[in-house]
Amino acid sequence: MQQLTLEETARWLEQCEDACILIHQSPDGDCVGAGFALAEMLHQMGKRAAVQCSDPIPDRYGFLLPDAPQETLTPKCILAVDVADPKLLGSLSDQYGTSVDLCIDHHRSNVDYAKRRFLDSAASATCEILYELTKLLPVTITDHMATCLYTGMATDTGCFQYDNTRSETHRAVAALMDACPDVRYAWINRQMFAVKSFGRMQLEQLLIDRMERHFDGKCILICVTQAFLQQFHVDEAELDGIAGFPLQVEGAEIGITMKEKTPGEFRISMRSADYVDVSKICQSLGGGGHVKASGCSMSGTVDEVRQTLLDAVGKALGGMP
Amino acid sequence: MQQLTLEETARWLEQCEDACILIHQSPDGDCVGAGFALAEMLHQMGKRAAVQCSDPIPDRYGFLLPDAPQETLTPKCILAVDVADPKLLGSLSDQYGTSVDLCIDHHRSNVDYAKRRFLDSAASATCEILYELTKLLPVTITDHMATCLYTGMATDTGCFQYDNTRSETHRAVAALMDACPDVRYAWINRQMFAVKSFGRMQLEQLLIDRMERHFDGKCILICVTQAFLQQFHVDEAELDGIAGFPLQVEGAEIGITMKEKTPGEFRISMRSADYVDVSKICQSLGGGGHVKASGCSMSGTVDEVRQTLLDAVGKALGGMP
Repeated sequence: MQQLTLEETARWLEQCEDACILIHQSPDGDCVGAGFALAEMLHQMGKRAAVQCSDPIPDRYGFLLPDAPQETLTPKCILAVDVADPKLLGSLSDQYGTSVDLCIDHHRSNVDYAKRRFLDSAASATCEILYELTKLLPVTITDHMATCLYTGMATDTGCFQYDNTRSETHRAVAALMDACPDVRYAWINRQMFAVKSFGRMQLEQLLIDRMERHFDGKCILICVTQAFLQQFHVDEAELDGIAGFPLQVEGAEIGITMKEKTPGEFRISMRSADYVDVSKICQSLGGGGHVKASGCSMSGTVDEVRQTLLDAVGKALGGMP
Repeated sequence: MQQLTLEETARWLEQCEDACILIHQSPDGDCVGAGFALAEMLHQMGKRAAVQCSDPIPDRYGFLLPDAPQETLTPKCILAVDVADPKLLGSLSDQYGTSVDLCIDHHRSNVDYAKRRFLDSAASATCEILYELTKLLPVTITDHMATCLYTGMATDTGCFQYDNTRSETHRAVAALMDACPDVRYAWINRQMFAVKSFGRMQLEQLLIDRMERHFDGKCILICVTQAFLQQFHVDEAELDGIAGFPLQVEGAEIGITMKEKTPGEFRISMRSADYVDVSKICQSLGGGGHVKASGCSMSGTVDEVRQTLLDAVGKALGGMP
């Protein structure tokens, strides 16, 4: 498919009309922020645009929604932001999976499914790319836009903690802060990273008790079952960031989080601290993502899924010096 | 005492010789980073300089120490970085408390004790000020200097999470990353913010169980006793960041951490989420600090200290709309 430069992407956006902006299922801060920031950019350029997602936007990202309800429109073009694979469109995949006109993404594992693509896998977040686009388009950064773009970059970098954070990320944030000093950036961080419900805290206590150490403590595995979530009245949306939890352990290189979605169906998140490329491990299991943060979906009993995961991790660690 | 501009501070540093650089007791990432960064800057300018602290530098900041052992020198000038009050020099206070030639600091509560002072209370960290000084001095930012300056800014802002983070902070970090791309910034973040010993994790579990909710949950208080530290084999230096722990609770505005230093002696850390100025509360108790992060020392039994703290918090909350 056609690979665009950032400049070409800007020019293409300038000529598009009536855009449906797709974001991925299980929406996170980056895709929600990118979706609504892009919609506002298109609105400022006099166009109609609406964000669509197969799942409802979790309450925790409610502050990213625009004040006005979204327009209903018959799309003349289909955009996808932060969507690495049409499968990730969820229930919208059948309708739109093969007809995306332009995809803007930062996932190295992007499968190049759209008619046009702008991919910058060095960008910390799709929101970082959208910030760069604001410089090339006739738009003004509003408080709402800055809120969206900041949230995307902050959430995808763990508040500028992970090594997908680059100098461009910090410069983009500095520019947002200067352009929109009234945005409550620290409040966003507090909501995204600090505040936890009491149920989530109790769940974390249980997960510490049940943490599994494998390969001499190089790999830490936790399993979040539906039973745990019910026990502590924790909503799935509250699990945000839990994938980073296993890597808190001293000496851990690979952190694995098994999340039970339905009986026998698991969503796996894999993180690495230093030298392991977990995107390769996840790709071998049908998933993908970034070098230090990837995921996949797996079926089976807890024991079966765990064994398959550990076999794959063993291979990866076995190939290490 | 004399208030210097940043430019005057740079000129003064250019003419000083054989500097003893003092940092505060219970050293943290900002004062250790600032101390060793300034020493290296002075070395590059052909001067002798050594950092002195009343306490040993904790192991967790060992990576900030220079490779070469420090010079022994008879100081011709005394500098203090990140030291808001001569009391905070600990056991070095008697020797140096009244003879500091230049103090560089970002604490609003700085008591103006030095002959000359550069104070920028809007700076996120003393290391942010030192970064600005590198632009005015004939020095080159090395990997070690970038490591020091980055660590100071990252630790004092909770990895750019708190609202002392400003656009200048992000720009300074971006410049460090561009100047020194080989520094392992994400590794520093992981060591400072993510990795915890198993003992610390167990301590946090206990603290969740024992968390006290006061004033309708607006104030959360935890008390870390020496008995807890011994029970989980947790070192004081491992308590870093624990002061942010109470504010994780949904709805908390003030988080108080009582740390028992010796029987009957407590170090208090106070944090606020949004609207309370905890520096005023701590000043009323003989301490000080920043609007959203302050501290003080108190004596008494747990119950006495708690009651005094809650009385002071009640007054502050009572005065709120």
